[in-house]
Amino acid sequence: MPELRKDPIVGRWVIISVERGKRPTDFVSPSQRKKGGFCPFCPGNEYTTPPEIMAFRPSGSQPNSAGWTLRVMPNKFPALQIYGDLGKTGEGIFDKMNGVGAHEVIVETPDHNLSLSTMQQKTVEDVLWACHLRLDDLKKDQRFKYVLIFKNEGEVAGATLEHSHTQVIALPIVPALVKEEIDSARRHFEFKERCIFCDVINQELDDGKRVIYENARYVALAPFAPRAPFETWILPKRHESAFMPADKSFADLAEILQRILRQMDRILDTPPYNFVIHTSPFYDEVNEHYHWHIELMPKLTKIAGFEWGSGFYINPTPPEESAKFMREAKI
Amino acid sequence: MPELRKDPIVGRWVIISVERGKRPTDFVSPSQRKKGGFCPFCPGNEYTTPPEIMAFRPSGSQPNSAGWTLRVMPNKFPALQIYGDLGKTGEGIFDKMNGVGAHEVIVETPDHNLSLSTMQQKTVEDVLWACHLRLDDLKKDQRFKYVLIFKNEGEVAGATLEHSHTQVIALPIVPALVKEEIDSARRHFEFKERCIFCDVINQELDDGKRVIYENARYVALAPFAPRAPFETWILPKRHESAFMPADKSFADLAEILQRILRQMDRILDTPPYNFVIHTSPFYDEVNEHYHWHIELMPKLTKIAGFEWGSGFYINPTPPEESAKFMREAKI
Repeated sequence: MPELRKDPIVGRWVIISVERGKRPTDFVSPSQRKKGGFCPFCPGNEYTTPPEIMAFRPSGSQPNSAGWTLRVMPNKFPALQIYGDLGKTGEGIFDKMNGVGAHEVIVETPDHNLSLSTMQQKTVEDVLWACHLRLDDLKKDQRFKYVLIFKNEGEVAGATLEHSHTQVIALPIVPALVKEEIDSARRHFEFKERCIFCDVINQELDDGKRVIYENARYVALAPFAPRAPFETWILPKRHESAFMPADKSFADLAEILQRILRQMDRILDTPPYNFVIHTSPFYDEVNEHYHWHIELMPKLTKIAGFEWGSGFYINPTPPEESAKFMREAKI
Repeated sequence: MPELRKDPIVGRWVIISVERGKRPTDFVSPSQRKKGGFCPFCPGNEYTTPPEIMAFRPSGSQPNSAGWTLRVMPNKFPALQIYGDLGKTGEGIFDKMNGVGAHEVIVETPDHNLSLSTMQQKTVEDVLWACHLRLDDLKKDQRFKYVLIFKNEGEVAGATLEHSHTQVIALPIVPALVKEEIDSARRHFEFKERCIFCDVINQELDDGKRVIYENARYVALAPFAPRAPFETWILPKRHESAFMPADKSFADLAEILQRILRQMDRILDTPPYNFVIHTSPFYDEVNEHYHWHIELMPKLTKIAGFEWGSGFYINPTPPEESAKFMREAKI
């Protein structure tokens, strides 16, 4: 059983995947990872993955067979285990609980060669719907407090399979960085009776120099204090605390997300990237202080190791410049 | 002038190196970085670096010439600028100040082919002394609150030059992760009248399963909730709030640090790594709640990108196992 452990000093929870326990010799050089070859996410290979949780099958085909346009299944090598209770216990000064949670994979398209930036916009919409549906389903499980939706694109960004996919992790705790944002946003609200993200968005839209793009419902901007070059946030322009579209449509979000990815592909030569969706925890989904958003980070620099140990970031590219390059990208 | 900018939501400060502003095309693939060739840190090439701040010259040789055993100079491409005032200003909701600070390089040895793990133990002691002396000197500057001492070893860990060196950054703010540790340690002390690090050390020494090695003054352990495989902390066993040896000797610290690095080299095939020294800020150097230490992290996995956006870590190696592998390493 994997374990969730809390650092007693900074209060950060980590997953220790005890059952995947790696020996020192397992850390092969990443460049030795094989490319090409058999892909478990391609149509016809459904038998090699755990049974699907849901799929979009416009052809009316059978579960776990070809004919799908999007497919969700449990991660074959999950970081967390779905069965069991939390078993919260102490070990002297330390706190831990069983690594209970869900770890799922959304295969975004049957086409091995497409990416979020090259697929049809409608397919991106489907991916966002799938994220929402999985989140909505997982919140029924009382053990979970949070669902983390994220994507690793490209080997350097941590993707272990080429075929375009998004990951979903349901957790019995709220991740540290999200919790910090929520706590801080709550303090701001108590003081000002306003959402701090709304304040930021208003100032940015008014100013304009860090705005990359906006459509009817969303804005993409380079944050004032980005941790790395070309870090980009996508936020709903009107206050929304949780990742569910007020108008029951993901069309505008798909449009802006894909546009940003295409601009990055264009000017940064199809970079590896990560994105995460930050949303309110299940126990407080509708609130006035927190504002859900996507944080997107191309992996361009290698300085993450030092930052990891200090929480201190050195960014060689001012966001005003990265926003300008992005705005001017011809896509 | 570089800028220090604060994220208004999580309160994290970042350095924006405005003058090094990179264009999109500057982000060349890291594998294209050239190896070998001219080394500005090798003896005889002193003229290519900024003038030295200090050096150990047992031969009595002239500054900025060969004959040194250790040499400290300003970073040629500093993230911060030494001259000027802080110029703290707001920009609507945002906070910023001038990127005033020091950014120095400690060249650890004249020998291009040695590393911290292969050099003489006495040389490691000298490196630690140099760190201490630079810290002691920089704290005289009233503009600075903190000095971050860190090392990037190997290209994957962010080193841009092969020749073994440690970096020193003096800052007008306390880095986020250090601040979190200090705040949390202070709360623990207010509640219990004890240092939380001392509590952790006592429990770990009593238990033993995460202890890698100890000598008379220091202990090396795998923390209970490590963020990545083989993360290792080195701490003084008796309470010390700041990085200065109570007994005016770095012999024991050099011994344990080098031993840990040799064990890692042995079982992880000379991995790239980062370490940072976490110590108390200048304005509160002697206190009962915070305990200085070294955090050392070999770079074995590639998952940092996602963790970066969530503060959530998945670690495939339990610290009890990594500690055991380390203890059993034959060096």
